[in-house]
Amino acid sequence: MSRPLYGAIEAGGTKFVCAAGYGPGELIASLRAEIPTSTPELTLGAVGAFFERVRAHGRPLAGIGIGAFGPVDLDPRSRDWGRMLATPKPGWSRVSLIEPLARFNCPIAIDTDVNAAARAEACLGAGLGVSSLAYVTVGTGIGGGVVIDGRAVKGLLHPEMGHILVRRDARDGDFGGTCPFHADCLEGLASGPALVARWKSPVESWPETHPGLEIAGGYLGQLAATIALMLSCERIVFGGGVMSSGRLLPFIRAAAARQLNGYLPIEARAGGFERYIAAAALGSLAGLTGAMLLAGAPPPAGAPPPA
Amino acid sequence: MSRPLYGAIEAGGTKFVCAAGYGPGELIASLRAEIPTSTPELTLGAVGAFFERVRAHGRPLAGIGIGAFGPVDLDPRSRDWGRMLATPKPGWSRVSLIEPLARFNCPIAIDTDVNAAARAEACLGAGLGVSSLAYVTVGTGIGGGVVIDGRAVKGLLHPEMGHILVRRDARDGDFGGTCPFHADCLEGLASGPALVARWKSPVESWPETHPGLEIAGGYLGQLAATIALMLSCERIVFGGGVMSSGRLLPFIRAAAARQLNGYLPIEARAGGFERYIAAAALGSLAGLTGAMLLAGAPPPAGAPPPA
Repeated sequence: MSRPLYGAIEAGGTKFVCAAGYGPGELIASLRAEIPTSTPELTLGAVGAFFERVRAHGRPLAGIGIGAFGPVDLDPRSRDWGRMLATPKPGWSRVSLIEPLARFNCPIAIDTDVNAAARAEACLGAGLGVSSLAYVTVGTGIGGGVVIDGRAVKGLLHPEMGHILVRRDARDGDFGGTCPFHADCLEGLASGPALVARWKSPVESWPETHPGLEIAGGYLGQLAATIALMLSCERIVFGGGVMSSGRLLPFIRAAAARQLNGYLPIEARAGGFERYIAAAALGSLAGLTGAMLLAGAPPPAGAPPPA
Repeated sequence: MSRPLYGAIEAGGTKFVCAAGYGPGELIASLRAEIPTSTPELTLGAVGAFFERVRAHGRPLAGIGIGAFGPVDLDPRSRDWGRMLATPKPGWSRVSLIEPLARFNCPIAIDTDVNAAARAEACLGAGLGVSSLAYVTVGTGIGGGVVIDGRAVKGLLHPEMGHILVRRDARDGDFGGTCPFHADCLEGLASGPALVARWKSPVESWPETHPGLEIAGGYLGQLAATIALMLSCERIVFGGGVMSSGRLLPFIRAAAARQLNGYLPIEARAGGFERYIAAAALGSLAGLTGAMLLAGAPPPAGAPPPA
């Protein structure tokens, strides 16, 4: 009997990455496409063409998983399930990511890109051994996904934790923040574009003594502490472009520890802040891996991360 | 056949309330006890004696549910499951709330008092019709519980959302806060004792024009917005002594709406802030009701709140 094939879509604001394979560690190299996010017609048309090619591969398609940029309706009881909500991305508001896939006659699952990444890190990455995990990406924006016992947290919408209000650092002066909705919410203070606006250079170029590291690390550390206090996650994983140099993570850990001040049993029950607040292990594969898992693909038992 | 009897314990820092009945709406008046929280030996001894009395009632005891003050170990895989963690309450650290009940040979379930209250409000109170709900109590401290699809959120420990850092209101001057761990975290600024320390009188005595209403409502509104952004709950319910006058709730709603600034679809999907941020419906019965549900007691189908 043929092993079933699973499809995965990482639907981003810049590009859609499509892939297929037998599982998250067994993607088929020839079945992969990167499609620019242009108009819904062009992009989703190319996605459909990709899955026609998968179907021509001659194996049954057992499911398609989508990790999508938001905001997107994730409520399966809603008639807008799988549809983009109001988004600044021109032409994409109210577009269904699911309808163009209906013709493949297989189960389709959708979640946010960060919930998908959280699922992947929880199952195969930095979350091995824990049953609740938050994944935070710091890049063009700041987003977070949460998985508890294999289920992603969602409800009214999905977590939008980049937009929480943080206490300002007096050393940050009167920088007004860059968020069009909230000015100096966390994303307005500590996303990649916010840090460039504030310091005139990207984090990757900062020397180890750059004052922005402690200030931005402090804001992101407040998010980590807030995750611990609000969601009681067993691990918090940071990924995304702004994190890639590895410079910020020690400042995030230090700020979270300082703020919590021994209140939560991080040392006794999570192995200390070094383990509790971890770097993402799957890198740029997290979203696609999460989408494969959403599709229903079996994770390789005890396998190391496919990164 | 006898209908099974369920036991419930609301284990508070001041008193333990014990009850038994056929369901949350069917408590048996004669099977109820209020036991002062003194030493673990005395208090838990009296709890045991209460359940001996329940057993003498002649019906099988099908389960006991406990809603407990924290911090308490809620991880069923832990050897400390059901045991108090380090608590300032003298003599109670590392005390098991479950061991003294083992002799009754029935399933025992434990959760925090606020998770139990969240479960009760979600099932029978202000959360009717939604599948994810946060319950916040504002009293001697500030605590919150969250139930998503009938499951309470817990992990490393349990939510301790009273201790998040909020952005200070400039009008609040240099008030240092009352939290022994974090000084001016939310609980240190907006719990009952904090408001008395700051304003020299309790909220209940404030006139409608008291400046503290907008400031404290602003801090609690920040918590509401943070719940919406972190957990994406479909409803947020406020209860507890500080809320009982009803004065603060409009300020909380206004502050949350101002902060979110249209970012989340509260109007479109939650019926507006008036419905989204609601007063607790079960009042002082929430904890005991939640404990009955934890015990496995069936909720009355479509019944109105038992308050």
